[in-house]
Amino acid sequence: MIKYPGSKKQYTKNTNSKDTSKRGMKLEEDINISNSIYRDRDIAVIYKKPTPIQIVDVDYPSRNKAKITEAYFKQASTTDYNGVYKGYYIDFEAKETKNKTLFPLTLLHSHQLDHLRQVYNNGAIAFLLIRFYTMDKTFLVLVKDLLEYLDNYSPKSLSLKWLESNGHEVFYRYPIPCDYISVIETLIKENV
Amino acid sequence: MIKYPGSKKQYTKNTNSKDTSKRGMKLEEDINISNSIYRDRDIAVIYKKPTPIQIVDVDYPSRNKAKITEAYFKQASTTDYNGVYKGYYIDFEAKETKNKTLFPLTLLHSHQLDHLRQVYNNGAIAFLLIRFYTMDKTFLVLVKDLLEYLDNYSPKSLSLKWLESNGHEVFYRYPIPCDYISVIETLIKENV
Repeated sequence: MIKYPGSKKQYTKNTNSKDTSKRGMKLEEDINISNSIYRDRDIAVIYKKPTPIQIVDVDYPSRNKAKITEAYFKQASTTDYNGVYKGYYIDFEAKETKNKTLFPLTLLHSHQLDHLRQVYNNGAIAFLLIRFYTMDKTFLVLVKDLLEYLDNYSPKSLSLKWLESNGHEVFYRYPIPCDYISVIETLIKENV
Repeated sequence: MIKYPGSKKQYTKNTNSKDTSKRGMKLEEDINISNSIYRDRDIAVIYKKPTPIQIVDVDYPSRNKAKITEAYFKQASTTDYNGVYKGYYIDFEAKETKNKTLFPLTLLHSHQLDHLRQVYNNGAIAFLLIRFYTMDKTFLVLVKDLLEYLDNYSPKSLSLKWLESNGHEVFYRYPIPCDYISVIETLIKENV
């Protein structure tokens, strides 16, 4: 949702961006800060993957400086985040909605779901982080639980109610803005 | 080694590239094909990460087509490859040398070694793939073994002899050009 060109505001230097333009980036920012703290404290090593770019032309105005002058965004084939926590392979996608009662599943791209399914089948701890930003609530949904629901009910969205029962709320724990590793730690202990 | 601008040939459409320009890409190609087969057969889910790019300016000639008109290569903070095999977090860097008797450690950037050390400390199966391309020999070196050697002897290179004793040769196993997962499977069974 966040990575694709979508809004020009994200890339241009001078923009009269309103508050709404930043909202979409807030969860990503929170996750990036959290990951950075996890790495600094040697708790987990998890990164956001770079956006895939198709480079067409590059200029070399000076010997050591390459300037890309023509390039295009490519469709990613994976999720945005992966890494390692206590030897476990962690893989997840992060999504935000301004909706107050449900998360529309159209926001989850099929390549993201396919990838999550495949890494889960290969032993990953795979999940979604979903934020309802008007209510400032964030849930972690294990792919296992998501797939069971999708396969049995083919829903078009995940209701807040469903998330409260089947997801796991993620909290801000100073100084970690989106402390999803605490949730994972609890789930590992419960052998989920 | 491979991802940075280095040679213009890599990006321009029409180039009179000589054989040497492709050599540097051969190990990467072999790994990408191997990973693609691993994914198709649901053996492992391992990807090469996109090259990180700093985007400065984007044009929108048409509604759904974003054209990046100014961007620069950024220094990566991780290795090139990671993913999951049987629940294990896999992380590695791939390097080639035309040298026939040793692999110069200057080819391994400090951020790559730091990252490999950190993921190893967090439970990853972390390693280097080193190819001597004039002899068509490829070795897998576990970061554990590499760090022990570096910490005790501060070598400037890894000799072919050292790699033959402390590394694990990786073979082409039809149709997998660089079947490093077989090596990992053996190492897991031996509880290394």
